[in-house]
Amino acid sequence: MNIQTGPDTTPECIKGTFFARLRNAAPAAWQGYVRHPFVRGMADGTLDPARFRAFLMQDYLYLLNYARAYALAVYKSDSFEEMRESADIVAGILNTEMAMHFSYCEGWGLSRAEMEAHPPAQELRAYAGFILDRAQAGDLLDLLVALSACLVGYGEIGLALANDPATVREGNPYFSWVSVYADEPYQDLMRRGVSRLDIVAARRGGVARLPELTRLFTTAVSLETAFWTAGQTEMT
Amino acid sequence: MNIQTGPDTTPECIKGTFFARLRNAAPAAWQGYVRHPFVRGMADGTLDPARFRAFLMQDYLYLLNYARAYALAVYKSDSFEEMRESADIVAGILNTEMAMHFSYCEGWGLSRAEMEAHPPAQELRAYAGFILDRAQAGDLLDLLVALSACLVGYGEIGLALANDPATVREGNPYFSWVSVYADEPYQDLMRRGVSRLDIVAARRGGVARLPELTRLFTTAVSLETAFWTAGQTEMT
Amino acid sequence: MNIQTGPDTTPECIKGTFFARLRNAAPAAWQGYVRHPFVRGMADGTLDPARFRAFLMQDYLYLLNYARAYALAVYKSDSFEEMRESADIVAGILNTEMAMHFSYCEGWGLSRAEMEAHPPAQELRAYAGFILDRAQAGDLLDLLVALSACLVGYGEIGLALANDPATVREGNPYFSWVSVYADEPYQDLMRRGVSRLDIVAARRGGVARLPELTRLFTTAVSLETAFWTAGQTEMT
Amino acid sequence: MNIQTGPDTTPECIKGTFFARLRNAAPAAWQGYVRHPFVRGMADGTLDPARFRAFLMQDYLYLLNYARAYALAVYKSDSFEEMRESADIVAGILNTEMAMHFSYCEGWGLSRAEMEAHPPAQELRAYAGFILDRAQAGDLLDLLVALSACLVGYGEIGLALANDPATVREGNPYFSWVSVYADEPYQDLMRRGVSRLDIVAARRGGVARLPELTRLFTTAVSLETAFWTAGQTEMT
Repeated sequence: MNIQTGPDTTPECIKGTFFARLRNAAPAAWQGYVRHPFVRGMADGTLDPARFRAFLMQDYLYLLNYARAYALAVYKSDSFEEMRESADIVAGILNTEMAMHFSYCEGWGLSRAEMEAHPPAQELRAYAGFILDRAQAGDLLDLLVALSACLVGYGEIGLALANDPATVREGNPYFSWVSVYADEPYQDLMRRGVSRLDIVAARRGGVARLPELTRLFTTAVSLETAFWTAGQTEMT
Repeated sequence: MNIQTGPDTTPECIKGTFFARLRNAAPAAWQGYVRHPFVRGMADGTLDPARFRAFLMQDYLYLLNYARAYALAVYKSDSFEEMRESADIVAGILNTEMAMHFSYCEGWGLSRAEMEAHPPAQELRAYAGFILDRAQAGDLLDLLVALSACLVGYGEIGLALANDPATVREGNPYFSWVSVYADEPYQDLMRRGVSRLDIVAARRGGVARLPELTRLFTTAVSLETAFWTAGQTEMT
Repeated sequence: MNIQTGPDTTPECIKGTFFARLRNAAPAAWQGYVRHPFVRGMADGTLDPARFRAFLMQDYLYLLNYARAYALAVYKSDSFEEMRESADIVAGILNTEMAMHFSYCEGWGLSRAEMEAHPPAQELRAYAGFILDRAQAGDLLDLLVALSACLVGYGEIGLALANDPATVREGNPYFSWVSVYADEPYQDLMRRGVSRLDIVAARRGGVARLPELTRLFTTAVSLETAFWTAGQTEMT
Repeated sequence: MNIQTGPDTTPECIKGTFFARLRNAAPAAWQGYVRHPFVRGMADGTLDPARFRAFLMQDYLYLLNYARAYALAVYKSDSFEEMRESADIVAGILNTEMAMHFSYCEGWGLSRAEMEAHPPAQELRAYAGFILDRAQAGDLLDLLVALSACLVGYGEIGLALANDPATVREGNPYFSWVSVYADEPYQDLMRRGVSRLDIVAARRGGVARLPELTRLFTTAVSLETAFWTAGQTEMT
């Protein structure tokens, strides 16, 4: 795909941050992820609903593992305040986001019981396994970098689609999904995550670790991309 | 010490539970912990306030590590509901309990800054290190057993002292501490913890693992006791 | 596939063991793994060499993660002797097996540098991620059960093919692979692993945990099977 | 204690290394550790043998936990070669060093059974708990820094005492202990550990992380010192 396609979608809040250095070190991989055909299919409403349902079921499993990774961030934090930030994210996922996800999925005809019984796709296992492995084997910075591809990617996609006049609003069943990530609560979460990454990177040698962290980040981005790709065709 | 001293203080809620089997397997160790001279010094108000202040400062560090252990319980849980229970405890400690602890300690002349700067005692390190090591090396059942000595012990102590006519109420600076653990919020937390232990023990072979789990539990109890003992004399 | 195809290939050493209970609880999944078309292609020499090379490259990455999992088994052991058993396996993999693997792969035209630079397949990530996640989240028994599908499966396959008169020996480039797993060093490793699982299962409530452990085992078997399936067609 | 007491004992091999930066950041703590009265009591043979026996029993438990920490280093390594280095240390401790330790202790009248049954001292728990906690919560660099206080300290002590004309050789029951750490096998182990720390520090932002790593290192040194101090008086 052509990474020059379309205007720059870099969110303001990442400019000059440590996250920007990671993203800039893997420009093609990043654009392949945030401008993926699956995303474009949501933007113009042409995505097959069966494909979106399969994605939602895997996304439920992803959320559970995402919460487990942030629980490890609590364990790996060095101060009370740092622990609190991650604990709030864990509680937010398990109390608020999960309820929203269940209710949203119900609108797509997916019951909670169905979602809980659904088996993980290989792509979900590969991605979640990677994040949790890096989270345990590395330090808090490795963990936050591994999670940042998802955290910022969804925020950037949401914002880019919401700002793009070509995005179909009327009658597009995917526009409410776009809004979740474009709206203030998620954008705020993303901004706080980006600024926290700056703090932890400063304290734990982020710049000196850029070669390794870029590899880690690029792998996370490629696993996100593989998740979209499988979502389009094979994932059940 | 004589474990026959005083009436039976077994909380109703543990009767017939898996926790009761652990407690009954280590009766002398348990009584030595819940009827420790440090505890009796709080009951009759004779405890040296300097000793109590030292205890409070270490207890702050204990709470942080306790929250880290419950964060590992989130990571080690097998279902969404199980994750939520532990996540609520982590959030409860870091948001509610910690604020109460800071405010309570302020009443004893200890500022938050002072507490955060205070170095851990050997006994705190030994106990917290033991819990976190068992939490990572074992499964969710090992983790919950390691934490149960503290969870139930403080609830049993609070209840026993609140119900004991010999406990000094008027002018006893420690009676508010007793109330925290005797009152409904903590008693409810304890009951839920005990019932959760039953569920996890049933699923993960608790009865068949009793010899190992009893050793683990007895060690946790002995480290709690050592914490009281050091609190009485040397801990700073 | 028809699981009645061919004679019973159960190794003698697993009869009556805890491992046999796991294997018997998932008969179709197990047969689908050990009699997989990829395996039959090695038995009769019809497997595409390009497919075998792709498998060997992923198998290198698998071995590294397998060694990491046994390193966690050292960490999670409860006694000096138990630690030694796992440490010997880690050292055996990294010193002996890896050298053999490199030399064997060189015979297939794969240099060590090429193998080290090769990216992991999704199926490798999914399987290794699963094993390491269960290894960290669970106890030593969870860990050993997760590893047992590979340990015994390869030994059973090697033995079955070596004993099967239909297996092509002359001019079959895969027969040396069969021999590695049929020969005494690996068979001995397998027997010791099976007997160790008995010991740890007895101590850590294996029988009472059968429902959960069977799920864990069946997932590991299905990820092994997916690894063969991808090996046949898409894995690079 | 006066850190100017006696000549400089800095081993040649650490000059200009990352380890030297850690050691130089905590000069008083370091000297308090390597010139501890317990050490001087071994140098001149005046140490109470009962105290040395108590130390040996705790040292056995320390070795087990030290091997567990290096097993985590295998898990946390990023390359095959890096994994091998730690795996060789784990195997070396469990196969070679432990046999030497058992045989050495037998010379002091301590049977292996006695050592295995002996309970851990608080100081052992505090130190081992700290190392394992940092090993799991941090990355490979945190882990190696936590272990370096022991690795280099014992090598520096051994070398310093072996080179010091004041050290009693004839009739000093502790001189063989000094030799173990002064002799080439241990000195080689130490040199390789120091050079490995340089490599990992370069890759994982060691210099930028000096404030945090110095705190970690200083804590490890203080826990080593507390171990000597308890060894002199109370440890059983």
